[in-house]
Amino acid sequence: MNVQAKPSAVTTGPITGSRKVFSAPPGRADLAVPFREVILAPGAGEAPVRLYDPSGPYTDPAAIIDLEAGLPPLRAPWLAARGFATAEARALRPEDNGNAAPDRLVPPCPAAPRLLAGRAGELVTQYEFARAGVITEEMIYVAHRENLGRRVAAEGAAARRADGEAFGAVLPEFVTPEFVRAEIAAGRAIIPANINHPEIEPMIIGRNFLVKVNANIGNSAVTSSAAEEVEKLVWAIRWGADTVMDLSTGRNIHNIRGWIMRNSPVPIGTVPIYQALEKVDGDPEKLTWEVFRDTLIEQAEQGVDYFTIHAGVRLAYVPLTARRVTGIVSRGGSIMARWCLAHHQESFLFERFDEICDIMRRYDVSFSLGDGLRPGSIADANDAAQFAELETLGELTKIAWAKGCQVMIEGPGHVPMHKIKVNMEKQLETCGEAPFYTLGPLTTDIAPGYDHITSAIGAAMIGWFGTAMLCYVTPKEHLGLPDRDDVKAGVITYRIAAHAADLAKGHPNAQLRDDALSRARFDFRWEDQFNLALDPDTARKFHDATLPKDAHKVAHFCSMCGPKFCSMQITRDLRAEAERLAGMAAKSEEFREHGGALYVPAEAAAEQP
Amino acid sequence: MNVQAKPSAVTTGPITGSRKVFSAPPGRADLAVPFREVILAPGAGEAPVRLYDPSGPYTDPAAIIDLEAGLPPLRAPWLAARGFATAEARALRPEDNGNAAPDRLVPPCPAAPRLLAGRAGELVTQYEFARAGVITEEMIYVAHRENLGRRVAAEGAAARRADGEAFGAVLPEFVTPEFVRAEIAAGRAIIPANINHPEIEPMIIGRNFLVKVNANIGNSAVTSSAAEEVEKLVWAIRWGADTVMDLSTGRNIHNIRGWIMRNSPVPIGTVPIYQALEKVDGDPEKLTWEVFRDTLIEQAEQGVDYFTIHAGVRLAYVPLTARRVTGIVSRGGSIMARWCLAHHQESFLFERFDEICDIMRRYDVSFSLGDGLRPGSIADANDAAQFAELETLGELTKIAWAKGCQVMIEGPGHVPMHKIKVNMEKQLETCGEAPFYTLGPLTTDIAPGYDHITSAIGAAMIGWFGTAMLCYVTPKEHLGLPDRDDVKAGVITYRIAAHAADLAKGHPNAQLRDDALSRARFDFRWEDQFNLALDPDTARKFHDATLPKDAHKVAHFCSMCGPKFCSMQITRDLRAEAERLAGMAAKSEEFREHGGALYVPAEAAAEQP
Repeated sequence: MNVQAKPSAVTTGPITGSRKVFSAPPGRADLAVPFREVILAPGAGEAPVRLYDPSGPYTDPAAIIDLEAGLPPLRAPWLAARGFATAEARALRPEDNGNAAPDRLVPPCPAAPRLLAGRAGELVTQYEFARAGVITEEMIYVAHRENLGRRVAAEGAAARRADGEAFGAVLPEFVTPEFVRAEIAAGRAIIPANINHPEIEPMIIGRNFLVKVNANIGNSAVTSSAAEEVEKLVWAIRWGADTVMDLSTGRNIHNIRGWIMRNSPVPIGTVPIYQALEKVDGDPEKLTWEVFRDTLIEQAEQGVDYFTIHAGVRLAYVPLTARRVTGIVSRGGSIMARWCLAHHQESFLFERFDEICDIMRRYDVSFSLGDGLRPGSIADANDAAQFAELETLGELTKIAWAKGCQVMIEGPGHVPMHKIKVNMEKQLETCGEAPFYTLGPLTTDIAPGYDHITSAIGAAMIGWFGTAMLCYVTPKEHLGLPDRDDVKAGVITYRIAAHAADLAKGHPNAQLRDDALSRARFDFRWEDQFNLALDPDTARKFHDATLPKDAHKVAHFCSMCGPKFCSMQITRDLRAEAERLAGMAAKSEEFREHGGALYVPAEAAAEQP
Repeated sequence: MNVQAKPSAVTTGPITGSRKVFSAPPGRADLAVPFREVILAPGAGEAPVRLYDPSGPYTDPAAIIDLEAGLPPLRAPWLAARGFATAEARALRPEDNGNAAPDRLVPPCPAAPRLLAGRAGELVTQYEFARAGVITEEMIYVAHRENLGRRVAAEGAAARRADGEAFGAVLPEFVTPEFVRAEIAAGRAIIPANINHPEIEPMIIGRNFLVKVNANIGNSAVTSSAAEEVEKLVWAIRWGADTVMDLSTGRNIHNIRGWIMRNSPVPIGTVPIYQALEKVDGDPEKLTWEVFRDTLIEQAEQGVDYFTIHAGVRLAYVPLTARRVTGIVSRGGSIMARWCLAHHQESFLFERFDEICDIMRRYDVSFSLGDGLRPGSIADANDAAQFAELETLGELTKIAWAKGCQVMIEGPGHVPMHKIKVNMEKQLETCGEAPFYTLGPLTTDIAPGYDHITSAIGAAMIGWFGTAMLCYVTPKEHLGLPDRDDVKAGVITYRIAAHAADLAKGHPNAQLRDDALSRARFDFRWEDQFNLALDPDTARKFHDATLPKDAHKVAHFCSMCGPKFCSMQITRDLRAEAERLAGMAAKSEEFREHGGALYVPAEAAAEQP
């Protein structure tokens, strides 16, 4: 084993052309919310462009990265003030690490915060605080983060109400902590934040906020080091993943999860049934409530922020999938379906849902109610199995809320464009507006190798319609394990989808970045254009492939049209003249509006101020 | 100069896993419409899947490719039967090839069909034939092509009416030649087919047909050979481009265009103002009607199938662009705007539109009325300049129809999702349902390097809403000249968008391919899954990156989940059991529907058959 917990083991340093900045919310100088600022060319006469930044301390040159020590527990003082009891951690068992032989065991991460556990009757979850009318530090933090650090609604002439069609979402001009509280209390938003994950920079998932992106990571068949697994997380958030799901299986997963938790500034989600299955040698029929329950506690204690729980796969729904083209494509869904059929018994996830809620509330682990019966092909979209499960997820949502838990709902899958909107509408209605969290959806089955694109089309649309978080799909979907380039392509593609959705919803801050980039483009400020891009390095590389010289970075043309044909340059040349004509046209319009006559009758003239 | 007009100079051979097949329309054994068939695994028990195929003879191993001879002129007998007069070709001028020095002149393509020109009073264009009630061979050909070679509506159990939302489009279950004629006569569809381009395999552009894709190609700064330019065309259509626009500028463009025309099985479009500008040394102010007119004739005689004409950029609209974030981003638009302002005169394209129609009618060159004022940024979408121009394009459409010409309309550009639909609606209303042909639109400005994706989102949506042809965008958009990989990425991405649109519109044939691929996926027929993909080579390569062994191609799992976790395998295992339960459930349902009581009253029982 070779745990390279050295700074050099993970990618650090700022995104090209950006710097990390911190901003305190109004009245809370003790909170430092991170942003990324793109500094524009000195001659541009434009202020730096502030961007939302989920990349954590890894992009901060001032931060000391030490994987063994973990990230600073910025929530620790907030949590301490809440007076949670410390608890005795569950004893580690060999099967937690897949019975890894001692010589192959990845050592645990030395950083380990004291275990906290909420008690009955006290406020533990963000939902409980919100319902009680209490605004937490997490709520203040995310409000400032969503505002991109603006301190008042009117700050910055550039901040403005964008037009848009929000389909019932209500995007405020300015997000207040009270608005955040009210949204969480209504169940319309969640802040996934296990009280045993003090290292996170809180973020919010809800349709009245910026659309978020999740990236999945998983261990390789042969894990060479914990740092290598942490690097997958660091790489995904560097390019814009807001949360990360750790879908690892196999040996060492407990200890590797510890390294990930302690070094993750974003919420981490898992699918506990995967590890539970490992503990029964991979045989779904051997699964028991006891093994599952034990796994929930194991992972909750480590600080996992949300669990995918496939409690909606009920025995009675399994036959509905029999004639599908692609059956059940969710791993968790198929595991539970197999269990139900083998035992001819209702799912223990469904039957024990109350107890699951009690465990998750204790640590404030949010539910991500899994869509185990999501369609895996265009042919199976929106079928009886899918919607039957959604109804059940709606019932479970209400139970989880009554138990004090935060909840989001997972959605499909493979859905042609014309069937996407009804998914969102049904989800909102059935699940009481709990946040929707969808995988794509993929809008066609025919492009393996390009499913980041087939799904970005669906993701942008469903994000526009109201989905709060989009689970990325990489180019390797259906084919193999994503490598580093695939993860980056997936995250960037989904940032495009999320941003396109924010624009279309009319998010008041979204268009600032488009406008800044387009002005840079029109002004031939090439470096500014690159640096404002989602991926500055690729933009620069593509430009330089045709025009590599530095002089071309200030050239008033590019390789597409060359100097003679540059439409931008021609427009710039004629702008002065056009402005003059536009002025004349405005005058003329004004004149027409005032009656259109050269000589205004005396009585009409008298009315004018 | 090194004109490598040898077969080896361009990419030939079938798409992996496919074979070229030909099928004759009912009653026309003399016509051979090409398709591509994917042959499935022998054990699959499935018929080969027939696909639309724009790749021409290059993917036919039986075809002899000789660039000097050009492709077989398959329309020649049809055109001959129409009795067109031959004409004297315009004499070549040095400026046609950018005054290339003799030692740097690319020689003309030896293949040169006799020049045909329609006369006044005779039927020349597909629009004129359609209006006169005449069904041409081109119409019969495209009908069969759109039907994927089905001979009657009922043929093949798999062909079925898909659900969908077509927004007023009427997609017939079976396309008859008469339907094609009626659509062309109504102006709702065009068959771009210059009577001097006998080599094309006719295709149709209209919203009641399959959504089409255009790819742009252009010459490199230093052209080493004509074959290299032809290869760009061959490469683009290999991956699925239905038409190709040649945007070349500079030296040798006349002669290179000749090579492209004679070797293109798809319609070729151009923007004649580019070449006209070259002829006046790149100074827009020096442009004249005479130079433009001469260029139109030059290119029409070569066989160009459609011309982008920016006749909607009127003097009065130019001031409307003055306060835009990105001004005028269309090359043609900015050239004409400059001309108008410099001369303080109405555009000669607008003023001479009648004469342009007369020239284009003579050869049946279709109009692609250019959107010279399309928005180049989210901020400028749907503004007064854009929609003013669209109104004018609507007026010009009616003039062109009155002159007997085929017309389509170009559309934007950069448009956020919530502003896309109104573009389609306004276009349909303003332009009398003439086919819409859009560039993307790009749904955000912030992702240079990924604009094939930002635009595929908009393209899929506007295709769904009714756009007939999508102009591709490559990853290099805004940054540099696309290379071979970029062209392929752009075409594949746009085939995804077009197919997603066909599915959502409910095209009766579209889902056959998705279903076949999904069945292959569920059956672990890996090779079939690859071969049915838009890009079999990439799908196979991605799979093999994780599981390279041949044995894995028949394995009942993949690298994502491994054998233990394979949801597909679990589902297969439980399908038999689930089928049995589904049967029971159906019985139970039937029972409930019949009253729900175990003992049916005697009188009710008597009513049952």
